Amino acid sequence: MKKTFLKNNKNIQFLIIGLGLIGGSIAKRLSKNSFEVLAIEKNKSHLNYAKKSKIIIGSLEKIDTTKKLFVIIALPPKVLLNNFDKYLDLFHKADFVTDCTSVKGSLLNKIKKNKLESKFILSHPIAGSEKSGFLNSNEDLFKDKISIIAKHKGLATSTLLKCKEFWFELGSKTHNLDPKLHDKIFSLTSHLPHVVAFSLISLLSKRKTSEYKKFIGGGLKDFTRIAESDPKMWENIFSLNKYNLLKDISDIEKEIKKIKTFILQGDGSKLEGHLKKIKKTKESLNR
Amino acid sequence: MKKTFLKNNKNIQFLIIGLGLIGGSIAKRLSKNSFEVLAIEKNKSHLNYAKKSKIIIGSLEKIDTTKKLFVIIALPPKVLLNNFDKYLDLFHKADFVTDCTSVKGSLLNKIKKNKLESKFILSHPIAGSEKSGFLNSNEDLFKDKISIIAKHKGLATSTLLKCKEFWFELGSKTHNLDPKLHDKIFSLTSHLPHVVAFSLISLLSKRKTSEYKKFIGGGLKDFTRIAESDPKMWENIFSLNKYNLLKDISDIEKEIKKIKTFILQGDGSKLEGHLKKIKKTKESLNR
Repeated sequence: MKKTFLKNNKNIQFLIIGLGLIGGSIAKRLSKNSFEVLAIEKNKSHLNYAKKSKIIIGSLEKIDTTKKLFVIIALPPKVLLNNFDKYLDLFHKADFVTDCTSVKGSLLNKIKKNKLESKFILSHPIAGSEKSGFLNSNEDLFKDKISIIAKHKGLATSTLLKCKEFWFELGSKTHNLDPKLHDKIFSLTSHLPHVVAFSLISLLSKRKTSEYKKFIGGGLKDFTRIAESDPKMWENIFSLNKYNLLKDISDIEKEIKKIKTFILQGDGSKLEGHLKKIKKTKESLNR
Repeated sequence: MKKTFLKNNKNIQFLIIGLGLIGGSIAKRLSKNSFEVLAIEKNKSHLNYAKKSKIIIGSLEKIDTTKKLFVIIALPPKVLLNNFDKYLDLFHKADFVTDCTSVKGSLLNKIKKNKLESKFILSHPIAGSEKSGFLNSNEDLFKDKISIIAKHKGLATSTLLKCKEFWFELGSKTHNLDPKLHDKIFSLTSHLPHVVAFSLISLLSKRKTSEYKKFIGGGLKDFTRIAESDPKMWENIFSLNKYNLLKDISDIEKEIKKIKTFILQGDGSKLEGHLKKIKKTKESLNR
């Protein structure tokens, strides 16, 4: 990709809000690529460590108003919404703002309400992990991953280009998606599986025999990786994508009930037919 | 492990009933280890291929009554039950019989009813795969895996020792489990996750936008591998482990409903607390 906006890295400052897994990984890659990185982070020891190890040059006190300010928000979605107003001045001063959250609807409303449509663009890097926090961050987290850009009305073309260059700088490809469709898709493909994984582990925790834990390899293990994900972030996501997710939960309840009914009725051939159809769908995903 | 019963391999014939993934893999390993292997398989082209490539020496016509006959049943659980009587003579003639199914209760009843308790032992190798069938079988399928031996009352000590040696010959360790507990454990750790995985893919198949399929990496993908498993076998398993599985399905419905209610009520801190507890359980599984 030909760089336009990120060509002269002496001309830009990146301000990362939140140095967790995502924010920390962004800061590490950008500083490695010789950009000036600033950060806001309430965990002082992480902030100091980032300063000492030259991942960042400092915090708000280091803002150089002669340079362009690119603000990257890496907070959990509800934390971002609850603190949006606190950062409003920063957003207005900035040349470019994007986020990294996996729910878009309510954030877009905030952006519109505050007339930030032109320079604030919605991003969602598909680079999460069950490992969370700054200590797990690494400069290659976004390498060869996809970052979704959810374009909205009123966005400046330059903002879109800046966003693409930004993710390209981190090693990612980008993919456009409508914000509403984004929230629907991720409800089903990510948020619902997390609900189910958390539920399966919760159920397992109620079985007292330790023998259960020895035999999770026959299926359960595949599901459980994501049940180790950050509870705060997932509470945020479930709550913010409430309407899509409640619909999907009702739908999965119906699907489970369908199989339950086949089993109850003892109708083996209907059940086998149902599973055959599903296997075909799964195989089509591999193509 | 010191071999007693499998020491002199000229003295024994193995008869494998069913040359699928499991039976084929057993036959390949045993013939490689210079045992005489016979097989019963309704797919004639697989049977002929196995003969031509010297995986087996033939079928029932090759039984040598001067040798000890070890019968290994590698059929799906309901297929085995439905054909049990057909093989009764064989079982009575045999020196040793075991199976490879993942539901034990109803098979044990058949064994008792036919007074085969002494020489027929329940096995369950934890070596399944979403890939099924003879064409996916391989001699190392059981290497470093665990095979469960579900001991019942009336079993001869020699049968238990033969079974341990048999799985050891294939490269597996063995683990004892009570047959009833076996069915309870595998209902939760394997059969229920399959119900959920099939349900998630069934739901996905109803979404018409192709964009959904591009973004299964954020959670759904983990669940989907097992939805490609053999429909016939899983219908068999779901149906035979009906009572344990229906109970577990009801329990997972309650767990999902719990999270649904927290989301509906908008009670973020309760939801976060619930997810935190689950994360702790998950972490304890890693130890």
